[in-house]
Amino acid sequence: MDIKTYLSEQKQIVDAGLNTFMLEATGPFARHIEAMRYSLFAGGKRIRPILCLAAAEAITPSSEKATALLPVACALECIHTYSLIHDDLPALDDDELRRGKATNHVLYGEAQAILAGDSLLTWAFDLITNREHNTLTAEQLLDIVHIVSRAAGPLGMAGGQSLDIAYENTDYPFTTLQTIHKNKTGALITCSVQAGAIGAGASPEETAALIHYGEQIGLAFQIVDDLLDATSTTEQLGKSAGSDATRGKATYPAFFGIKLTRQKAQDAVAQAIEALKDFDKKADPLRDLAHYIYTRSN
Amino acid sequence: MDIKTYLSEQKQIVDAGLNTFMLEATGPFARHIEAMRYSLFAGGKRIRPILCLAAAEAITPSSEKATALLPVACALECIHTYSLIHDDLPALDDDELRRGKATNHVLYGEAQAILAGDSLLTWAFDLITNREHNTLTAEQLLDIVHIVSRAAGPLGMAGGQSLDIAYENTDYPFTTLQTIHKNKTGALITCSVQAGAIGAGASPEETAALIHYGEQIGLAFQIVDDLLDATSTTEQLGKSAGSDATRGKATYPAFFGIKLTRQKAQDAVAQAIEALKDFDKKADPLRDLAHYIYTRSN
Repeated sequence: MDIKTYLSEQKQIVDAGLNTFMLEATGPFARHIEAMRYSLFAGGKRIRPILCLAAAEAITPSSEKATALLPVACALECIHTYSLIHDDLPALDDDELRRGKATNHVLYGEAQAILAGDSLLTWAFDLITNREHNTLTAEQLLDIVHIVSRAAGPLGMAGGQSLDIAYENTDYPFTTLQTIHKNKTGALITCSVQAGAIGAGASPEETAALIHYGEQIGLAFQIVDDLLDATSTTEQLGKSAGSDATRGKATYPAFFGIKLTRQKAQDAVAQAIEALKDFDKKADPLRDLAHYIYTRSN
Repeated sequence: MDIKTYLSEQKQIVDAGLNTFMLEATGPFARHIEAMRYSLFAGGKRIRPILCLAAAEAITPSSEKATALLPVACALECIHTYSLIHDDLPALDDDELRRGKATNHVLYGEAQAILAGDSLLTWAFDLITNREHNTLTAEQLLDIVHIVSRAAGPLGMAGGQSLDIAYENTDYPFTTLQTIHKNKTGALITCSVQAGAIGAGASPEETAALIHYGEQIGLAFQIVDDLLDATSTTEQLGKSAGSDATRGKATYPAFFGIKLTRQKAQDAVAQAIEALKDFDKKADPLRDLAHYIYTRSN
């Protein structure tokens, strides 16, 4: 199966999951839930949930385990969506466009956008711990809540975003850029893969290999994001292009130029695939996903 | 033991727990963690954690179970603190003063305050699921994450806050005020009591009684908050007094006047105590806490 078909099929599975699990916009909080749903269903590629499911499928011969991970996969997308809503706020990146659509605060106002983000984050943990939907063991689910909250919190995504904002318009060394990327983008991607490993009952060796894979594609993903911001038009991106430069953000292209940056993205992809060397063909979707992340930049 | 001594001793236990569990403001995210710590250690009364521990002590003869709940109790305070930081933001209540100190965004800026709130919320789930600190079973901890995320999320605190903001400067019926209060304030208070019950292994009957107790003191708490806002000075409150009226928020005094509002707070306290009728003297701290919540208004 080619990667585009695979991605399209997996996206359908995730979207169906989100439709099943996500609250309906009814009752006293209808408008609030509508704001949550607006961004959740605004056309994301569902990369994190797909990585979670693909990691589980790389371990387990049956697809049952992967299905059992669907609520967790959907929760990861809720957390990703929350981070986008908050990142787009006027006080942060002040973006009015995301995936070609108005950002949450443009449509619902700043206060409601902040709260919609808060609720998507909180609801992700509600979903992971909802025993009606989850058939994994309590130990597995608890481990998953732990790695997800670690990856999304002050020592991960939120910490990375805080640094990113704090360092705008300042000169900072490459090591700081690495810290920002690793946490702001990499942590949640890596933990998506790791959650799949936990849910599928991976061995410690398999888990370590999958975490390494996750770290490398997380890196590739952010480098490619930097490249796209530097080389695309706003129309191509569906969000403001060139905004890194406008906001005085350090990026890989700013440090290394376009050509060397492409090489670094390719190296990360190669390392990700190398991390899977002891996995059989069940890991092919993960390998294809790694290649796909790079090809986004061309 | 009188209630003031009890509260002071329990607050010390919670503060010691927060000091033990909370991240140090070091490493690359030092400033971000400092912003989290600033609001967390800004002098809260620790009512929610104290309720959680007192609920556990009402069930179990030994204090071991209550000690086992300390990380959970501290996590509840993190969630409460996150909600205060976000509520105080310029886009929401726009408050510059909280507990007599500058609010988070005044000190750290809006972007960093949003992220500090996000991280306190996320870190709460990290703490509850950290097996280094928690000796409760995986089942118990998972149940606790579930009720806490339900209480704090779109069908609870965040939903209530969303309604509160949406209805500012509009006329709305008393039932809407009840929905706002029940969710914005009541949900987390009730769930603090319920988390204590889960951690102490309460029976279904005991749990139901404690939830009812929690609902009634949650109601009393919010009514008293409305009263304090209407009748105190800013100096007494440590935050802007009269701000409900200024922002066109409906309150109990606006619907019922001061005298009848006081009566309603007393009624809720009486019902809370009635809910504990089958509990022995181990529930005395809960009873005293209910009375204390009312006396705050005098």
